[in-house]
Amino acid sequence: MAKIKSGKNGTRKEVIIEKATQLFLEKGFAASSMRDLAEHVGVEAASLYNHIQSKSEILQEICFKVANQFISHLEQVEASQSSAIGKMEILIRFHIRMMLDEYESIYISDHEWRHLPEPYLSNFLNQRRHYRKRLGAIIEQGIQAGEIKQIEPYVAVLTILSAISGIESWQRSRKTISERDMEENMVKFLVEGLKESQ
Amino acid sequence: MAKIKSGKNGTRKEVIIEKATQLFLEKGFAASSMRDLAEHVGVEAASLYNHIQSKSEILQEICFKVANQFISHLEQVEASQSSAIGKMEILIRFHIRMMLDEYESIYISDHEWRHLPEPYLSNFLNQRRHYRKRLGAIIEQGIQAGEIKQIEPYVAVLTILSAISGIESWQRSRKTISERDMEENMVKFLVEGLKESQ
Repeated sequence: MAKIKSGKNGTRKEVIIEKATQLFLEKGFAASSMRDLAEHVGVEAASLYNHIQSKSEILQEICFKVANQFISHLEQVEASQSSAIGKMEILIRFHIRMMLDEYESIYISDHEWRHLPEPYLSNFLNQRRHYRKRLGAIIEQGIQAGEIKQIEPYVAVLTILSAISGIESWQRSRKTISERDMEENMVKFLVEGLKESQ
Repeated sequence: MAKIKSGKNGTRKEVIIEKATQLFLEKGFAASSMRDLAEHVGVEAASLYNHIQSKSEILQEICFKVANQFISHLEQVEASQSSAIGKMEILIRFHIRMMLDEYESIYISDHEWRHLPEPYLSNFLNQRRHYRKRLGAIIEQGIQAGEIKQIEPYVAVLTILSAISGIESWQRSRKTISERDMEENMVKFLVEGLKESQ
């Protein structure tokens, strides 16, 4: 059978992870076997094990890659000179773009993290909790600065992140509106929903 | 073994459905068997079949009961004299209250509808699509009347319904904020996010 080709898209391991992401999206993590994955990649199951140890390892790679993308972006935003509401707009746009551009990985990370083994599971959940708190802290700063309306930061963060995750239903639909319209309309709703009215 | 007691909470069938809802929430629909359900109700499996035919029948009851609650509420709101933004506030509050008061049924309906057999599946999906269109039509009326900002109704409906479904994560959390704070803060965010600024 064929060898796993590494190409301009990355190393062999990256190719396997990319194929696995598609497979998990179609079949679900629990229902996907290493044998299914080998078939999807087009190689013998044995040759997968030269690159990865287990399904779990792939899930860890997917979940922590996504988590790291969000955290490094947040760190840049926190360090920037924007106002609090400006920071929230940048973060909201980034979350929307991730749902549009990196949908497969985000979906796996959002829906399959429960299958992470310990200590990865606790680590992942801590990172998520911490991330949400840091978003809440920016909202709190915006309230103090009079840029953001008096709102419970916990509820605001939950509203924003849940609303954006709803793009999943657009991804599965016939997509009667464009990515650009999705982004601009959702930003208009969420960013203005946060703003203190002048 | 014990008989299925009907009590002030309803008929025997209703008691079975209530217990099944809890079981599906804990174990998932696919992983729950009629045997598990009998155990959860505290009777022999055989005696369940005096009241219901199958797991599927229970799922239909749950999904269509929820769908009917939303549709009859929407009909009342459509027939009312409120402004379009007023109607949206009433609808948003109703969705939030359902997530708070009827969480178990809503969760099953939102997550397990894929297991409905045909023709119920198509019927259910049509009802959902139709419901979302009718919400979109109210938003469209609000835009025409200058009460609601220029926004793509499809995106507004998706944003609202997804945001509210995020209350799931609050339901599974330690609930550091109250139901009332959840409702008022989310209404503040979503209703004001829709309003045309004066």
